[in-house]
Amino acid sequence: MSQVAGIIAEYNPFHNGHLYQIQQVKQTLPDASLVVAMSGNFLQRGEPAILDKWHRARQCLQAGADLVLELPFAAAVQAADRFAYYGVWTLKQAGVTDLFFGAEHSDYDFMKYAAIVSEISGNFNQYHESYAETYQKIITEKIGHSIDQPNDVLGLAYAKANLKLNANLKLHPIQRKNANYHDMQLANQGTIASASAIRQAVFDQKTEISKYVPQFTLQDLKKEKTVSWNDFWLHFKLELLTHSAQELESIYGMREGIQYRMIAMAQQAETCQSFAQWMKAVKTKRFTYTRLSRLATMVMLHVTQADIEYFYQHPFIRVLGFNNNGKAVLHTAKKKTQYPIITNVTAKDKKEIFNLDYRVGKGYQAINGAEQDLKHAPIIINDVSSKTP
Amino acid sequence: MSQVAGIIAEYNPFHNGHLYQIQQVKQTLPDASLVVAMSGNFLQRGEPAILDKWHRARQCLQAGADLVLELPFAAAVQAADRFAYYGVWTLKQAGVTDLFFGAEHSDYDFMKYAAIVSEISGNFNQYHESYAETYQKIITEKIGHSIDQPNDVLGLAYAKANLKLNANLKLHPIQRKNANYHDMQLANQGTIASASAIRQAVFDQKTEISKYVPQFTLQDLKKEKTVSWNDFWLHFKLELLTHSAQELESIYGMREGIQYRMIAMAQQAETCQSFAQWMKAVKTKRFTYTRLSRLATMVMLHVTQADIEYFYQHPFIRVLGFNNNGKAVLHTAKKKTQYPIITNVTAKDKKEIFNLDYRVGKGYQAINGAEQDLKHAPIIINDVSSKTP
Repeated sequence: MSQVAGIIAEYNPFHNGHLYQIQQVKQTLPDASLVVAMSGNFLQRGEPAILDKWHRARQCLQAGADLVLELPFAAAVQAADRFAYYGVWTLKQAGVTDLFFGAEHSDYDFMKYAAIVSEISGNFNQYHESYAETYQKIITEKIGHSIDQPNDVLGLAYAKANLKLNANLKLHPIQRKNANYHDMQLANQGTIASASAIRQAVFDQKTEISKYVPQFTLQDLKKEKTVSWNDFWLHFKLELLTHSAQELESIYGMREGIQYRMIAMAQQAETCQSFAQWMKAVKTKRFTYTRLSRLATMVMLHVTQADIEYFYQHPFIRVLGFNNNGKAVLHTAKKKTQYPIITNVTAKDKKEIFNLDYRVGKGYQAINGAEQDLKHAPIIINDVSSKTP
Repeated sequence: MSQVAGIIAEYNPFHNGHLYQIQQVKQTLPDASLVVAMSGNFLQRGEPAILDKWHRARQCLQAGADLVLELPFAAAVQAADRFAYYGVWTLKQAGVTDLFFGAEHSDYDFMKYAAIVSEISGNFNQYHESYAETYQKIITEKIGHSIDQPNDVLGLAYAKANLKLNANLKLHPIQRKNANYHDMQLANQGTIASASAIRQAVFDQKTEISKYVPQFTLQDLKKEKTVSWNDFWLHFKLELLTHSAQELESIYGMREGIQYRMIAMAQQAETCQSFAQWMKAVKTKRFTYTRLSRLATMVMLHVTQADIEYFYQHPFIRVLGFNNNGKAVLHTAKKKTQYPIITNVTAKDKKEIFNLDYRVGKGYQAINGAEQDLKHAPIIINDVSSKTP
């Protein structure tokens, strides 16, 4: 069986660090095709993507990926474990054999650690970030050191999913260069900066970012409407102001009556002038920034527990774009997987398995103005360096 | 018993035609106090008020009204019959004896007509505008001529409410001068223009409106954030895009599956670039412009059938402002009425009888930035021409 490389990513936006990662894949497995499982228009940390999924998919195809699959909303806007689970699941359906991911410690034996901690991850379905601290303590005890850097944590989550899904992916941790995930400053030297820092620079319009992103990303960021939480803030606030706490109970991830606090902080003039101010006011020890952002995203897009559970029962693979190599990978995948592969969204998909993604796509479109799904065919790139004749 | 004059109004915004009406009241009943029942921040035709209720209340107090009561949301954003019913009900609670209103035909005997048509108004609770045409036909048969001018129609609705409530108000139709209700052009001569034309001029910022409004209105329109449907459009659209037709079923006034059409037109790029475009696309013969605007307002503020019915079961009187005369009227009213009179909204009110109004007030505040209820005491004007010593 030929090798197929895989990456799970968000590309928010696609930058030189991502390019470096793809180059590493090509160096390691020169003959393998590369499949990317990428978040759609809303991301793991509970925020809208700066550019829509089509632009980001095209960017990574231009950078050398062969097939881009979308992580559906219910898979993408999730805590690390579930995000990783569906990322690995998607790559498995596509026939991926080798998973590449950035790690702060590329020397860790993630599969070994996964086997050690798999028993303590407990009931996967009840995972909350608020338990992250306890979880870290147990990991330290069992493994002998902590695993607390963001990419290492995600790497461990991939390894756990790999075990759980019997996906048999070979893991290739790639040593992270320069920028830390949380770095908010663009480095003075080098050409790699964190995606957060790049986004900040785009929104502030103060710092030049051309050093840190490929030309095609730069073009898109200049030409397209860039989207942030601020674009949704008024709607989100009105959603909180006009709904009762009882009504918000059905929203996915709503727990411990946090909606009372969410509503109260939207009602007070001192805590509701901006999304950032509101977040700061609502944040507690049990509801971390990312957990709260995800919850806010769910409220803002009115995503219920039932919506998310429907996806768990009816998972699917969504194609965003491919080149000739990717087309071949897709062809093979279609023969093997028992799950639906959506290439063009039909009216039936819109009503059924794709309903949630259609709705949140429309939500994103309300801001950037571009049709996201129903009338959007996959991106097809004729790769000049294609290996097929 | 001393005479107390009453007006039911929206003052969107307060203009010279309204001033003329108040002057007519003072001429007719020089010794009477004047009570105004005014819509709050959302209006009968299903739109946000151009200025908030506090500015509009102050405007009419400055123009000579003595007491301003707010028509609660569930009373104000209603078809003519119900709007009129709660207008008359509110004035009755305040001890009003004489009702003044503009009419295209001030010579009509509205009480006589009311007696004739009261039997055909049918089940009041099932009144829909879509039946307006049939209703007009029957009126023409029974009375001998049509009553189809907007102010005449409202006058008839007041007369019917007067009968129904045994309010025993003496009706004083005032002949409308110049501007027709629907006039969208500012007149070239004269000093009276329709409120619609004035709002249009304010939003277009092209035409000078100083000729048509008192100085205090002009000041407010220049100084304050003016509000229109456009301010709520994105939120309303997202509300439609992220909710299912089933979820919108509970919204007040939702009938005949119109929500499917409302959602569909929000999904199509060609019909959802603006509120006006969307309205045009959704409008049908059975769902007139105003009926649809009201329905859109209910969706936008998430007002359910249960919210409105709660008000029917727990009606109240809400005080926005008064002068010394008004204070005396209020004092007498408090002794007579069995219903709650809310002068300052308490934490208990916020949770109970005032909950809906509090929520929609917060919705309005999200746009104009001014606290609407919880921390807002009534406006007290020390009227120099006050009749109390």
